[in-house]
Amino acid sequence: MNKHELKLEDYLLFDNKVFRDAIHGYIRVELLPIWNLINTGEMQRLRRIKQLGGTSMVFQSAEHSRFTHSLGVYEIVRQIISLDQVKDHLDDYEKLCVMCAGLLHDVGHGPFSHSFESVMPCSHEEMSVRIILEDSEVHDVLASVHEDLPQDVAAIIQKKARPLLVQLVSSQLDCDRMDYLLRDSYCCGVTYGNFDMSRILRTMRIKDGHMVIKASGVQAIEDYILARYHMYWQVYYHPVCRSYEHLLQSILTRVKDLYDSGYVFFSDISLLKPLLEDHMSVSDYVALDESVMMYYFRVFMQEDDAILKDLSERFLKRHLLKYKTLESPEALTRIQRISDAHGFDHRYYVTSDYAKNVPYKHYDISNQTAEIEILKEDGQIVSLPETSEIVQAIIHAKEKEDAKVFFVKEIKNEI
Amino acid sequence: MNKHELKLEDYLLFDNKVFRDAIHGYIRVELLPIWNLINTGEMQRLRRIKQLGGTSMVFQSAEHSRFTHSLGVYEIVRQIISLDQVKDHLDDYEKLCVMCAGLLHDVGHGPFSHSFESVMPCSHEEMSVRIILEDSEVHDVLASVHEDLPQDVAAIIQKKARPLLVQLVSSQLDCDRMDYLLRDSYCCGVTYGNFDMSRILRTMRIKDGHMVIKASGVQAIEDYILARYHMYWQVYYHPVCRSYEHLLQSILTRVKDLYDSGYVFFSDISLLKPLLEDHMSVSDYVALDESVMMYYFRVFMQEDDAILKDLSERFLKRHLLKYKTLESPEALTRIQRISDAHGFDHRYYVTSDYAKNVPYKHYDISNQTAEIEILKEDGQIVSLPETSEIVQAIIHAKEKEDAKVFFVKEIKNEI
Amino acid sequence: MNKHELKLEDYLLFDNKVFRDAIHGYIRVELLPIWNLINTGEMQRLRRIKQLGGTSMVFQSAEHSRFTHSLGVYEIVRQIISLDQVKDHLDDYEKLCVMCAGLLHDVGHGPFSHSFESVMPCSHEEMSVRIILEDSEVHDVLASVHEDLPQDVAAIIQKKARPLLVQLVSSQLDCDRMDYLLRDSYCCGVTYGNFDMSRILRTMRIKDGHMVIKASGVQAIEDYILARYHMYWQVYYHPVCRSYEHLLQSILTRVKDLYDSGYVFFSDISLLKPLLEDHMSVSDYVALDESVMMYYFRVFMQEDDAILKDLSERFLKRHLLKYKTLESPEALTRIQRISDAHGFDHRYYVTSDYAKNVPYKHYDISNQTAEIEILKEDGQIVSLPETSEIVQAIIHAKEKEDAKVFFVKEIKNEI
Amino acid sequence: MNKHELKLEDYLLFDNKVFRDAIHGYIRVELLPIWNLINTGEMQRLRRIKQLGGTSMVFQSAEHSRFTHSLGVYEIVRQIISLDQVKDHLDDYEKLCVMCAGLLHDVGHGPFSHSFESVMPCSHEEMSVRIILEDSEVHDVLASVHEDLPQDVAAIIQKKARPLLVQLVSSQLDCDRMDYLLRDSYCCGVTYGNFDMSRILRTMRIKDGHMVIKASGVQAIEDYILARYHMYWQVYYHPVCRSYEHLLQSILTRVKDLYDSGYVFFSDISLLKPLLEDHMSVSDYVALDESVMMYYFRVFMQEDDAILKDLSERFLKRHLLKYKTLESPEALTRIQRISDAHGFDHRYYVTSDYAKNVPYKHYDISNQTAEIEILKEDGQIVSLPETSEIVQAIIHAKEKEDAKVFFVKEIKNEI
Repeated sequence: MNKHELKLEDYLLFDNKVFRDAIHGYIRVELLPIWNLINTGEMQRLRRIKQLGGTSMVFQSAEHSRFTHSLGVYEIVRQIISLDQVKDHLDDYEKLCVMCAGLLHDVGHGPFSHSFESVMPCSHEEMSVRIILEDSEVHDVLASVHEDLPQDVAAIIQKKARPLLVQLVSSQLDCDRMDYLLRDSYCCGVTYGNFDMSRILRTMRIKDGHMVIKASGVQAIEDYILARYHMYWQVYYHPVCRSYEHLLQSILTRVKDLYDSGYVFFSDISLLKPLLEDHMSVSDYVALDESVMMYYFRVFMQEDDAILKDLSERFLKRHLLKYKTLESPEALTRIQRISDAHGFDHRYYVTSDYAKNVPYKHYDISNQTAEIEILKEDGQIVSLPETSEIVQAIIHAKEKEDAKVFFVKEIKNEI
Repeated sequence: MNKHELKLEDYLLFDNKVFRDAIHGYIRVELLPIWNLINTGEMQRLRRIKQLGGTSMVFQSAEHSRFTHSLGVYEIVRQIISLDQVKDHLDDYEKLCVMCAGLLHDVGHGPFSHSFESVMPCSHEEMSVRIILEDSEVHDVLASVHEDLPQDVAAIIQKKARPLLVQLVSSQLDCDRMDYLLRDSYCCGVTYGNFDMSRILRTMRIKDGHMVIKASGVQAIEDYILARYHMYWQVYYHPVCRSYEHLLQSILTRVKDLYDSGYVFFSDISLLKPLLEDHMSVSDYVALDESVMMYYFRVFMQEDDAILKDLSERFLKRHLLKYKTLESPEALTRIQRISDAHGFDHRYYVTSDYAKNVPYKHYDISNQTAEIEILKEDGQIVSLPETSEIVQAIIHAKEKEDAKVFFVKEIKNEI
Repeated sequence: MNKHELKLEDYLLFDNKVFRDAIHGYIRVELLPIWNLINTGEMQRLRRIKQLGGTSMVFQSAEHSRFTHSLGVYEIVRQIISLDQVKDHLDDYEKLCVMCAGLLHDVGHGPFSHSFESVMPCSHEEMSVRIILEDSEVHDVLASVHEDLPQDVAAIIQKKARPLLVQLVSSQLDCDRMDYLLRDSYCCGVTYGNFDMSRILRTMRIKDGHMVIKASGVQAIEDYILARYHMYWQVYYHPVCRSYEHLLQSILTRVKDLYDSGYVFFSDISLLKPLLEDHMSVSDYVALDESVMMYYFRVFMQEDDAILKDLSERFLKRHLLKYKTLESPEALTRIQRISDAHGFDHRYYVTSDYAKNVPYKHYDISNQTAEIEILKEDGQIVSLPETSEIVQAIIHAKEKEDAKVFFVKEIKNEI
Repeated sequence: MNKHELKLEDYLLFDNKVFRDAIHGYIRVELLPIWNLINTGEMQRLRRIKQLGGTSMVFQSAEHSRFTHSLGVYEIVRQIISLDQVKDHLDDYEKLCVMCAGLLHDVGHGPFSHSFESVMPCSHEEMSVRIILEDSEVHDVLASVHEDLPQDVAAIIQKKARPLLVQLVSSQLDCDRMDYLLRDSYCCGVTYGNFDMSRILRTMRIKDGHMVIKASGVQAIEDYILARYHMYWQVYYHPVCRSYEHLLQSILTRVKDLYDSGYVFFSDISLLKPLLEDHMSVSDYVALDESVMMYYFRVFMQEDDAILKDLSERFLKRHLLKYKTLESPEALTRIQRISDAHGFDHRYYVTSDYAKNVPYKHYDISNQTAEIEILKEDGQIVSLPETSEIVQAIIHAKEKEDAKVFFVKEIKNEI
C-alpha cells in the first residue's frame, strides 16, 4: 500500500479510550496503534521516570512522570491536527506519524534526566530514535501498521521530516513545551508557567507548509515566552534542584570510577554493567529506570567504599549539597582545597555549574523551523521579534547568568 | 521541665521555611522539630511511596507521594490550631504533639499501601507507632525535645489521647481526609473531591473539649461527605485500581510461597528476607519502598519460576487482570476451573473482592471521637445526621456494593 | 420551503464570532440568525437585568446579567447538539429552533426577577413567548428565516415541542440550570455549585427520542443535584436576598396603591404607566429594565409620599429589612402590630415568606420530560432515583423549610 | 485625643463581618468605621457603576462594579498592613487611614468612567476628595472617629501623605492595580491579568519608610508588569470598548450642545442640570449613576432632536461605531467629509483616538513614590529596571501605539 493512502478510519478503536487529565481535561485515544504504543513496556517504563528529576526536592508536589507528560504532548498534537484550519494540510499518514512522534519523543529518556545523560554514550533523543528503530515493542507496533512508519516517526524526532511535522514536536512553540509548562506549573502549584493555550491554538494557521500564528495571537505568545523564562529561573534552575542533580552525578561518577579501577561490588550490579561497559542494547537501556537506580542507591549504603556509601545516604535522605554564588575560578580552587582538607574528595564533593537562559532564541541556524512566525492582517509573514516589542526587547536584554559552587554542609562555616 | 510549660517560641526556626504547594498555596514550617522531622530518612522515604498505589493506572496524572500528602495534613493541623477560636484550647505542648502526629501519621506506610499490608504482620498505623517509639531518626528528633514526646505523639495516632487531638488526626472530619480528598481530586483532574475547606475551618468551634461545626457550616460538611463518597466510587474503588492491587498481591503471595517452599532465588532478595521471615526491625521495614519493590519485579522477570516471572512482567508492563461483576460463589469456582485448565494457577491468577462504602458512618462504637457534631444557634450540640436531611438520608440508604472477579485476559473469551 | 429541509450551512457567518467567557472558555456563534438575535434590542436589554437580583446584596461579586447567562445557555445547547452521539437525532431546523430557544428563554424577564413578577400580569416565560410571537426585533429575525420559526421556538419554551427539544431547555437537567449553577457559583466565589459538566455531556445519549444519561455518569449527576440543593440554600434563599426582594416588592406595591388611589406623582412615571394600568404592549415591557427602575427609586426619594420616599431611600442605600425565623402565625400578627405602633405601616414594612426546596423532584405529572433517565449497561432505562441511592435518599428526606418574617431595623429591639 | 494614640481595638465590631469574594476568598471587616463606610449611600452607589464601562460590550462576562473592586482594594490593604514584616511600621491611626483610603479611592467615580470625565469639571480623584471632605455620609462616618480623619484620608488619595501610605493606594504596585488586574481577568475569563499576589506580599518589606520588594520576588513583579501590559492591550484598549466610549461621549456632548443652545427637552432632565450648568454639589454628583444615565438614554429615544434620538438608540441596542486604523490627519478629514455628506454630522459621528501604553513607567518626576524598589540580598536598594533585564528591556522598547478613527456603519463601504 502507498502509505499516503492510509486511512485513519481503518485504525479506529471500537470504543474511544479516554484518560482523565488534570491539564487537558481528557486525553482522547481513538486509534488502535496509539493505544498499543501506550501499552508497550517502553512507554509504561516512563511511569517510573519523573518529569522533573530534582525539582520535587524543592517543589514537593511536582511528582508527575514522563509518561503523563508524553500523553499530554500527544493530546496537544491531536488537538492541533484536528483544528479546522489545520486538518486539510496533512494527510492521514502524516497525522499518524506526528501523533506517534509526540507520544514517543521522550521514550528514550534515562532516569533522572540530565545527570544521567552525563554518563550515557548518547543523548535521550538518540535513544528515543534507537528504541523506535531497533528491537522493541514500540518498533513492532509501528512496523505492523506500515514498514516505513518507524523510520518516518524517527525522522520527525530527528528534525529531518517536513517542517510542519517537526514544528509540532520540536520548535520554539511545540507541543512538548506547551504541555510541560502547563503541567509543571500546575503540579508545582505556581502560576508562572500558565498561558492561554486555547488562544494560541485558535490563532494558529498553516502557510506555505509552516505553522504560523495570526497577529491577534501575539500577546498569548508573549505570555508563553515569559512563562517559559520564569519557569526556567523559578523552577528548573533552582539551586536546590541543581544540588540534587550534582549529588546524583557524583554517585554515578564514583560508581564508574570504582568499576574502572576494578573495585568488587558487594551489590549485584548486573543491570548497570552494560552502562558501565558502554555497550548498551535497547533492552539493557530500558531496564534502567528511577526505581532501579533508587534500589542501587539503597544497597550502595552497604558497600565498603566510604565515598559511595556516604553519597548514597545523603541522596536518599535528601542531605543535599550546600551552595553559593561562584565569583571567580580561584574561589572554586579554594573551596576544593578546603573540601579535600576535611576529607571530602573534591572530585565528588565539590561541583560547580552555570545556568544561563534567554527566554527566546532568535537565530538558531541549525534549525530552520524553530522560529515563531506571525501572520499579519495583510497576509505578510514576519518573525515574532519583528512584531513584538516585548520579545525584541527580551532578545536584546543581557543574558541572565548564575554560576554556583556546591559543597558539603560540613565545610559551610569555613566558606 | 513540665512538658505543659513548653513554649513553642523557644523552638522557632531562625527563618520560616515555606513549601510551595498546589493545594494549600504554601506549607509553613516555623518550628525546628517539625523541620527536623521532615528531614529524617523515614519521612524522606515517603517520597518513594505513592499516595494512590494503583490509581495512577487509571488516573494517570495522580502520581503524588505520601510525603506530599503528609506535609499537607501537617499544614491543615497547623492552620486549625492557629484559628482564633481554637488556639486557646490547646497548650503549646499539645500543639506540638498534634502537628507531629499529623506529619507522621503515615510514616509507617508500606509500599503500594493496601496490597502490601496483606503480607505484613501488622497495620501501617502500628508501624507508624513503632517508628515513633523505637530506634529511628524520627524517634531521636522527638525525644530530643522532650522524653515524653514520642509516646504522646504515638498516643494520638493510637486514638488514646485527648479527644480534640485525636479528632484532628483521625475522625470523620480529620485533616488526613481533608487533605487527601482535595489533593487526590486535584491530581486526578476530577472535580468530585472538591469541597469548601475554608468554610469548614471558619465554622469550626471547640466545645467541651470537642471539635464541633457551627450550623452555618453544615452545607459545606454535606458537600465534603458527598465528595468522599464520590471519590471512593469514582476513584479509589475503580476496578482497574483493584486489578492492579490484585496482581501485586499475587506476586507477593507467590514470592512468599516460593520462599517457604525452599525455592532458591537467582536475585539477591536480602532486603525482602526480614519480611518473608517475619522478624522485621524498624530499619528493615524502612528499607522497603516502592523503588525497591519495582526493582525486584524487574529482576523477577529473570527468575526461573514461570509464575513469578510472568506476573512480574504483567505488572511492569501494565498488562493487568480483566474483571467482571461476580454474581455468585459458583461463578467464581467456574472461573477458577477455566483458569487452571488454561495453565493459569487460580491461586495467583483468579481473585475476587468486594467494595463497599457508606459515605458517612453513624455509629462507630469503637471510636467515640469519630462522629461529626454540629453546634446549633441555641448552643445545643447534635450529631450531623440529626441536623442534615441529606446525611440522614444517606445513612439510611442501602449500602452500595460491588463484587468483582479478576482473571487473565487469555481466558476472557470463555467467560 | 419545507422547513425540515433547511440547511444550517446556508446560514453560516462569513467569520465565526467568538465571545470569551469565564465559564465556557469561548461561546461560539457560527450562524447569522443567532448573531442577529444577540444584536436585537430585546436581547441587549438583558444586559441591564441582573441574573441574581438581590443576591449581590450578600454575594457582592455576583453582578452578572441575564444577557451573559443567556449566551451561556445557548452555548451549552450548541455543544450538546454537536456531540457525536446526539447530532444525528435532530435535523438542522430543529437544531436552529433549540439554539434559539436556549438563547431566548429568558428574554421576557422583568427587572429584579421574582419581585417584579408579583406586580406583573403574567409570568416571565409568557412574556418571552409574547416577545417571540408579537411585534419585536426578535420576531423579525426569526420570521426572516422561516415563517414557522417564531412559533416553533415559542413551543419549546412552552414545553409543547418534541420532548428532546424541551428537555434541553427545561427539565431537571437542562442547559439553563447547568449554566446558572456554574456561573452563579463562579461569580459568587463559592464552590457549592460546581459539578462536572463535561462528564455529563460525555455520558449523554439519545434513546427513543429522549435524552438519557449512561450509568457511568450517575455520580456526576448526583453531584449536580447536590450542587443545586446547596446553591438554593446557601445563595438563592439567603435571608438577606429575600429581604432585598421584599423591600423591592413593597416599593412596587406602594406605587401601585398610590396610583390606584389617584396620587399625583411629582416624577414623570410614563414608562411605568402601562404596567400600572395593566395594558402592556411588548414594547412597553421592553422599555422597563433595572436601570429604569433604579432611576425611579432615585427620583421617588423626592416624592411627597413619606412611605414611598422612605422605602426608596432604604433600597438604594441598602438599608434592608431585618429578619427572624417565623414560628407561628400569631408571631406575625404581633410583629405587624408593633410595626404599626411605631408608624411603619405593616402592609409595606412587615412581610414574611417561606423558602422550601427539595433537591430533586421525582414526580412532576405536568411535565413528562422533567425526569432524569439513566441508561444502564444492559440497555434498560430507569429513572434516576431507581439507580441512585443518594438521590432516592434525598427524595425521601423531609423537605427543608425556612419561614422568615422581615421588619424594619427600628423595631428590632422590641422583637 | 492625640490621633496617633488611637487604638483599633476600640473600634472592633462585635462580630467580624465577612464578604465572600471570588478573588480573595473572603473580605474581612473587623472595624466599625469600615463597616459604616461600606453602608453609606455614596459607597452603595458604586454598585451602580461598572468597573469596566465599555469592556463588557466585548468581554460580556465582565459586569462587576466599582463597589466590588473597592472592597477588594480595601482587603489587599488590610492584608498588607497585617503582615508580620509590615505591621509595626504603621501606628493604628495610620492603619485606619490607609484602609479607608483604599476603600474610598474610587468613591468619586462618575458613571461610565472615562467618557463621563470628559464632560465633568474635575477628575474622579478630585471628586473622591470632595466627597470625603464635604457634606456626605462618608464624611460623617470619618469625622465621627476623629476630626482629622477626613483630611488625612483625602491626603493619601491626593498623594500628599507619608510615602508608605501613598504607595499602598497609588503607585506602580498598589492595591488598586493588584485588585483590578486579578478581578478584571477573572471576570473577563482571560488568563493574561493573573499574577502571583501571594508571593508579592510574602516578599514585601519596609525600608526607610518605603515599601520595597525582596530580590526573590522580582519574577513575580515581572509577571505583574506583563499582566498589566497585556490587560491594557487585550482588554482595556480593545477598539470595541473605545467605540462604546466614543458613542457615549457623543451623546453627552450632544446633550450639552443642545442645552447650551436653548433646546427644550421633552424629558425631565433635572438630575443632569447641575452637570450641564457646571455647579454640582456633592449630592448632585452622587445622584448620577449608570442607572440614571441609562434611563436618560432610554427617554432620549423619544426626544425631537434626531441626532440625540439616534445616538441613544444606537447606544442602548449596542449598534456601536465601526473603526479602522488612522494613518494620517488627512484620512480623518476625508472620513469627516464623507460622514457629513451622508447626513451624519461628523462632530458626533466621527471620532478618533490614540491608545498608547508602556508597561512600566520608569521616570515619573511628579511622583517620587511611584517607582518599584527592589531590596537586594546585600541590603542595597535598587530600582526595578536596574535589577530586571526584562523590565529594562521593556522600558527601552518602542512605545506601542494605536490610532483609530470611528464612524457609523452606514458609511463603511465608502471608507
